[in-house]
Amino acid sequence: MEKKSPETEHPRRAIGWAARDESGFLSPFNFSRRETEDEDVTFKVLYCGICHTDLAYIKNEWHFSSYPMVPGHEIVGVVAEVGSKVKKFKVGEKVGVGCFVGSCRSCDHCTNNLENYCPNSIQTYGGAPYHDGTTTYGGYSDIMVANERFVIHVPDNLPLDAAAPLLCAGITVYSPLKYYDLDKPGMHIGVVGLGGLGHVAVKFAKAFGAKVTVISTSPNKKDEAIQHLGADSFLVSRDPDQMQAATGAMDGIIDTVSAFHPLQPLLGLLKTNGKLVMVGAPDKPLELPILPLILGRKMVAGSITGGLKETQEMMDFAAKHNITANIEVIPMDYVNTAMERLAKGDVAYRFVIDIANTLKAD
Amino acid sequence: MEKKSPETEHPRRAIGWAARDESGFLSPFNFSRRETEDEDVTFKVLYCGICHTDLAYIKNEWHFSSYPMVPGHEIVGVVAEVGSKVKKFKVGEKVGVGCFVGSCRSCDHCTNNLENYCPNSIQTYGGAPYHDGTTTYGGYSDIMVANERFVIHVPDNLPLDAAAPLLCAGITVYSPLKYYDLDKPGMHIGVVGLGGLGHVAVKFAKAFGAKVTVISTSPNKKDEAIQHLGADSFLVSRDPDQMQAATGAMDGIIDTVSAFHPLQPLLGLLKTNGKLVMVGAPDKPLELPILPLILGRKMVAGSITGGLKETQEMMDFAAKHNITANIEVIPMDYVNTAMERLAKGDVAYRFVIDIANTLKAD
Repeated sequence: MEKKSPETEHPRRAIGWAARDESGFLSPFNFSRRETEDEDVTFKVLYCGICHTDLAYIKNEWHFSSYPMVPGHEIVGVVAEVGSKVKKFKVGEKVGVGCFVGSCRSCDHCTNNLENYCPNSIQTYGGAPYHDGTTTYGGYSDIMVANERFVIHVPDNLPLDAAAPLLCAGITVYSPLKYYDLDKPGMHIGVVGLGGLGHVAVKFAKAFGAKVTVISTSPNKKDEAIQHLGADSFLVSRDPDQMQAATGAMDGIIDTVSAFHPLQPLLGLLKTNGKLVMVGAPDKPLELPILPLILGRKMVAGSITGGLKETQEMMDFAAKHNITANIEVIPMDYVNTAMERLAKGDVAYRFVIDIANTLKAD
Repeated sequence: MEKKSPETEHPRRAIGWAARDESGFLSPFNFSRRETEDEDVTFKVLYCGICHTDLAYIKNEWHFSSYPMVPGHEIVGVVAEVGSKVKKFKVGEKVGVGCFVGSCRSCDHCTNNLENYCPNSIQTYGGAPYHDGTTTYGGYSDIMVANERFVIHVPDNLPLDAAAPLLCAGITVYSPLKYYDLDKPGMHIGVVGLGGLGHVAVKFAKAFGAKVTVISTSPNKKDEAIQHLGADSFLVSRDPDQMQAATGAMDGIIDTVSAFHPLQPLLGLLKTNGKLVMVGAPDKPLELPILPLILGRKMVAGSITGGLKETQEMMDFAAKHNITANIEVIPMDYVNTAMERLAKGDVAYRFVIDIANTLKAD
């Protein structure tokens, strides 16, 4: 069977920027989106955040990328059309799509609103094909079509650009704080790494009523963490005296660092029964000392994004507490420079592409 | 201040076997126990189990042993005398003492019946001095004196010799099964390593209503695990095909192995939200791959022994379900040979010393 070209496999013309090979270089790309089916929501994309995963995917760092690839899974916009069976959305409403656009809908995970753990989930881009066999394309594009189950309402009081990163970065830190019972007022929560995930983790943990300590290798992030993000204290992870003084202080830690790093000092910061939750994914195994786990009934755990029901809950919670990401809005044609800066950690704290105003037909 | 000799620091004469140096060689030892104080229970020791920790302590493997050392923290016997304020025990009752004989009684852990996590807990032997400043001595001895908070009732239907190991091995696996919610009927529980801890873990997990799979490097333990211990299935951890076939099967795993071993294959056996609980303590860090934790919201956790309230609960549960350890009863003067065999894993599954009939005055 001949494979149709991206430009003609669906009836609706779409434009975006795509990577064509492992160089990861992005350039204009003409493709197509399906018509609005019965349960679909079609929306005009206004903004799309740049997640670190986008960078890893376009450069094939995890060795399963295929090209052409249109990245972007922090996508927000305004509904242009809804299918005949759509119940939750109307034309003109503000909506978003995060990391997933499909799942099997019948496994235990899907039944329990944990589509993110469905073994047959369909990523917004870069993963398995959609149910109809076609490639999925992400949010660095002018228009988006998604089944309503995978579409999130963005409350009116949230600015769309700064809300976009909540769809990945936000839910990635919100979900483990909830699941691991680290959302109780008065808890002391550590956040390791002050990047796209970490800075949002500080805000959610504060909104839950926690005392929040940022743990970072960079002493120069201290003022920013405390004065602008609302953290209560700051630890330089490379300073043994500071770390020692905080021994046994924390109920839980959200570790957002994806570089190789030692776990032992972090385990030392935890109280008995404390939880170290990894949301960054180092590509090499970390060294895990077992005695601290045993002597303190501690755990090292993981979590990835969240289900759709919880993503909506997170978005509503963010709206109620005025939580958004700190962003740098960029034009579409700045994206390759933005990727270079992201690779160096040179962003405070999330790039968001102004799609509506800067993405132009080739 | 002159330090009194072990033989005269207390008024009550006691005999036992002690290690005198890092050779770990045990030999007869005359020492003394305190008089029965107001809250104390004094009991004639009938049996004492040999825990792997005893071996590590007498040989100073963890570099904090002091000598002379009388090991033994799986101690059972019959009450000989009770203090004037003792409420829970009467002369003639069957009792036991496990890993602890004291704690601060005022910290959060003690208040919540988690004396085992009290930073000032006093081990039955080999740790910090008792409240009165004297050295604590373990159960390889004829008589024991302990505060009633740290004494456990042994129900009449349990044979004392085979119940002794429950005081350490039993609670060590019972407590994490409870704390990590791995005690629900119908769950699938893995047990790694079929030694003193593992074989009791199989029995408790079965009594909770789980399907139990033993995971071992030794194929020749299969028949024993299934036919005599009641396990439902058996996996040879070095057989990739067997391990692959069991991918994603288990709700939780109790890992009793204290040798260096890979965690990745065990994480692969877990379902989403699965829990790998370490109760063995390898002395070197293990390699922890992070991606499986994240993609499956899994955890690697630890647990050590249990509080006194839970130890009593465990003992009562064992009595109700006829759970005891599989033991080899030995005379006191066989203890050095037993230690050599224990070091080679040559015991099925716990040595218990017949103190009452074989410990004789020097």
